[in-house]
Amino acid sequence: MSTEQGSGTSQPAGTQAVGVVGLAVMGENLALNIAEKGFSIAVYNRSTDKVDSFLARAKGELGAGSGSVFGAHSPEAFVQSLERPRRIIMMVKAGAPVDDTIAKLRPLLSPGDLLVDGGNEHFTVTERRAAAIEGAGLHYLGMGVSGGEDGARNGPSLMPGGPRTAYERLEPVVKKIAAQVDGPGVRDPGPCVTYIGPGGAGHYVKMVHNGIEYGDMQLIAEAYDLLRSIGGLSNDELAEVFTRWNEGELQSFLIEISARIFRTRDPEDASGLGFLVDKVLDASGMKGTGKWTVQDAIELSVPVPTIASSVDARVISSDKKGRVRNSQILKGPAPHPMAAAAKQHLIDDVRQALYCAKACSYAQGMQLLLVASRTRGWNLPLGEIATIWRGGCIIRAQFLGRIKAAFDRDASLPNLLLDPGFVEELGVRNAAWRRIVALGASAGVPLLATAGALSYYDMIRSERLPANLIQSQRDLFGAHTYERTDKPGAFHSEWAK
Amino acid sequence: MSTEQGSGTSQPAGTQAVGVVGLAVMGENLALNIAEKGFSIAVYNRSTDKVDSFLARAKGELGAGSGSVFGAHSPEAFVQSLERPRRIIMMVKAGAPVDDTIAKLRPLLSPGDLLVDGGNEHFTVTERRAAAIEGAGLHYLGMGVSGGEDGARNGPSLMPGGPRTAYERLEPVVKKIAAQVDGPGVRDPGPCVTYIGPGGAGHYVKMVHNGIEYGDMQLIAEAYDLLRSIGGLSNDELAEVFTRWNEGELQSFLIEISARIFRTRDPEDASGLGFLVDKVLDASGMKGTGKWTVQDAIELSVPVPTIASSVDARVISSDKKGRVRNSQILKGPAPHPMAAAAKQHLIDDVRQALYCAKACSYAQGMQLLLVASRTRGWNLPLGEIATIWRGGCIIRAQFLGRIKAAFDRDASLPNLLLDPGFVEELGVRNAAWRRIVALGASAGVPLLATAGALSYYDMIRSERLPANLIQSQRDLFGAHTYERTDKPGAFHSEWAK
Repeated sequence: MSTEQGSGTSQPAGTQAVGVVGLAVMGENLALNIAEKGFSIAVYNRSTDKVDSFLARAKGELGAGSGSVFGAHSPEAFVQSLERPRRIIMMVKAGAPVDDTIAKLRPLLSPGDLLVDGGNEHFTVTERRAAAIEGAGLHYLGMGVSGGEDGARNGPSLMPGGPRTAYERLEPVVKKIAAQVDGPGVRDPGPCVTYIGPGGAGHYVKMVHNGIEYGDMQLIAEAYDLLRSIGGLSNDELAEVFTRWNEGELQSFLIEISARIFRTRDPEDASGLGFLVDKVLDASGMKGTGKWTVQDAIELSVPVPTIASSVDARVISSDKKGRVRNSQILKGPAPHPMAAAAKQHLIDDVRQALYCAKACSYAQGMQLLLVASRTRGWNLPLGEIATIWRGGCIIRAQFLGRIKAAFDRDASLPNLLLDPGFVEELGVRNAAWRRIVALGASAGVPLLATAGALSYYDMIRSERLPANLIQSQRDLFGAHTYERTDKPGAFHSEWAK
Repeated sequence: MSTEQGSGTSQPAGTQAVGVVGLAVMGENLALNIAEKGFSIAVYNRSTDKVDSFLARAKGELGAGSGSVFGAHSPEAFVQSLERPRRIIMMVKAGAPVDDTIAKLRPLLSPGDLLVDGGNEHFTVTERRAAAIEGAGLHYLGMGVSGGEDGARNGPSLMPGGPRTAYERLEPVVKKIAAQVDGPGVRDPGPCVTYIGPGGAGHYVKMVHNGIEYGDMQLIAEAYDLLRSIGGLSNDELAEVFTRWNEGELQSFLIEISARIFRTRDPEDASGLGFLVDKVLDASGMKGTGKWTVQDAIELSVPVPTIASSVDARVISSDKKGRVRNSQILKGPAPHPMAAAAKQHLIDDVRQALYCAKACSYAQGMQLLLVASRTRGWNLPLGEIATIWRGGCIIRAQFLGRIKAAFDRDASLPNLLLDPGFVEELGVRNAAWRRIVALGASAGVPLLATAGALSYYDMIRSERLPANLIQSQRDLFGAHTYERTDKPGAFHSEWAK
């Protein structure tokens, strides 16, 4: 491996296979991943000391077989070092920084060059940018990159969207750097990347991925809350339960890391006995993709109550001061641990409830993809999308193989929960789920997402909902008319006084 | 009262006090209301046969003391008939029709004239239009009008927003045409209109009013569902229960009309025995203000789970075919009536649950107004807004007097539920609410809004939420850092392997 740093005449001219702009955590790790797979790379960052520290890290980390690394100190040197037509991946913060980067690069690029935005940009912004850039004869892709720091370095899940021909220029690179799903017993092994669709489809699918991630995290948090507050489980016991869960149907990265979290000691605790999770403030942040998911779901009239609940829960958690104040004022039961004898039953019920609610959350997310795909003509490959989420990304789980299989069986499945496998599983498990929701309600443990998922399930399976009363009200006060169960047409009535 | 129809030279010149454009249900009734209060009016409608039928209706309906009515057949005749500076209320469908109307009128208007949009327009569109129109020296108001056909005719609740000086020109009219709240024992009697605030504040408050209306309707529908499915109540019994509820703390227009609905016989049933509500299809429609409310709530990070649930419930209800199919496939308990002996307990629990959930829904709506007001500098008078919702509009209820009193006691109340009155009431009633949510979960009756409200209540009163696990996960996979409970700062840790 050779690393060079150049700015001026010493630079390589038109030799580097891939360019990466932006060397924050994600960009730095993705660039190393690309080089390690044998591609020569050029990197550039506005603060050039990041370029130098990157070169140092690359020198130490990249072994034989890696591509050469050129660290540019100017956009000009960066662009000129790239093989034409160029392939440039921008790993800068969504919003204005992307516009700034494009503005800097654009005058230096030539027709046929490809720009890829690997950030979490809103899909409509990506479509707006793509239109402007394609007008100048350049190609543009919006690519979701999931997996955090570790995924970027060792194999992320990648969701590229834009013109298929543009994707094909990137494909040799992304197929190599993506997470590879393989191993004994794995169906459909392969890299966690596929062409998602035109326009902003790539960033859209990443956005929904994040919405699902929010849902998973909130459902796990609610399970934790019950096991801790009502089950009285210690962190050691929680670690054990989550480790066991990770060997069964709940197997997933998020369950796995939860077990690790419950085992982590507080580094600030001199005794070495305290657990870190107990010292972490219960106020969660967020960056926007969860909010966007819910907003677009509302726009498209797709109910995603479980995902919406997870956004609400983060917002409410963040007002810690308000909650501490409220806890002294608002009345209700204080959760207290149940008898030890009942603990095992609780753990078992919580596991089943978590599985059922998770299935509903994924059903909602896939439904959103389905409707968005139809509305915007994206032709999203739902089964393929489940496949590329099996590795690299935060929601990776065996479970996604189940979703792939469901869409393989029936590509036009109107709702994931109608897949015979899920029908059977939720049929067996819904009684436990109901006990958990009832328990949370009586004990005062808020289960917004878990309970919302149950209501969703019961609503979509209700032949008869009370919406006839709502329609009657609307007709009475607003002459909005109603339909009848026994004949077609729109009716308006004089209602009793 | 004199009515005239003019187009050409016979028209009155600059004599009519108020102009109304758009004679669909709302416009027609609002125009009659204005004339009846003694203001001379001019009306115009694109299809001029509506103008003629309006004149006929006005002739039959308006008595002595009413203002004169001029029906214009052209925008020119309409505008020229109005006293200057002019006051024109547009009652046309939101969106393009408003733009068309403005485009037609604008060349005919003079500086100082006032245009009012009385439709359900999105507040950002109103602000955009206002800016364009004010640039031309005209005045613009966005005014929410609630109360349906009957409210428009006999006294609506009015929510005008825009420049205060522009409002003052409209005030003499709106104070007279609005619903008047008065009577023995009524605190703060007066008309249901007040200056809401600048910009799009009027349309915004109307939007949130509608969101709250969605929430109320869904909560009532869920109560109905339980009473019907589990309680086994007949329509006669339901009518009786709702009539009784309307005499107590749940007194409201929506409870009152529900009782009327349960009493209404099916006009298509020759036997005269069938009830209409049982024949109304359980698929509810909507027009957009509920969706907008939830979208802006997400934008502003204000949790409104009860209102969001009501939008989701309408969407799910509208897929009747899908639900009928799903009901044959997805498994779970089929609700069945409980023993007659337990019926009275159920009714009593449902009443308390409805009251608690309703309080949460209003708390969410008022919170949204509070945050929107701060974010956009509107300085919304929350107590006044509750006051003008007491009459005329769809959510009118005694309950709103309670909200007014709460903001009178403490104008900076961070959450309505912290008002001592609500604290006490929810303290007493939350046990019943919990029983109802648990019952719905076990029996398979979906209570998305009622259960969501309970989770909201339990979340905001939780000193400790499980968000510490979420923050730990985010730090582990994304190095997002976390805060600690015992010291300030942002921390990042190496988590156990």
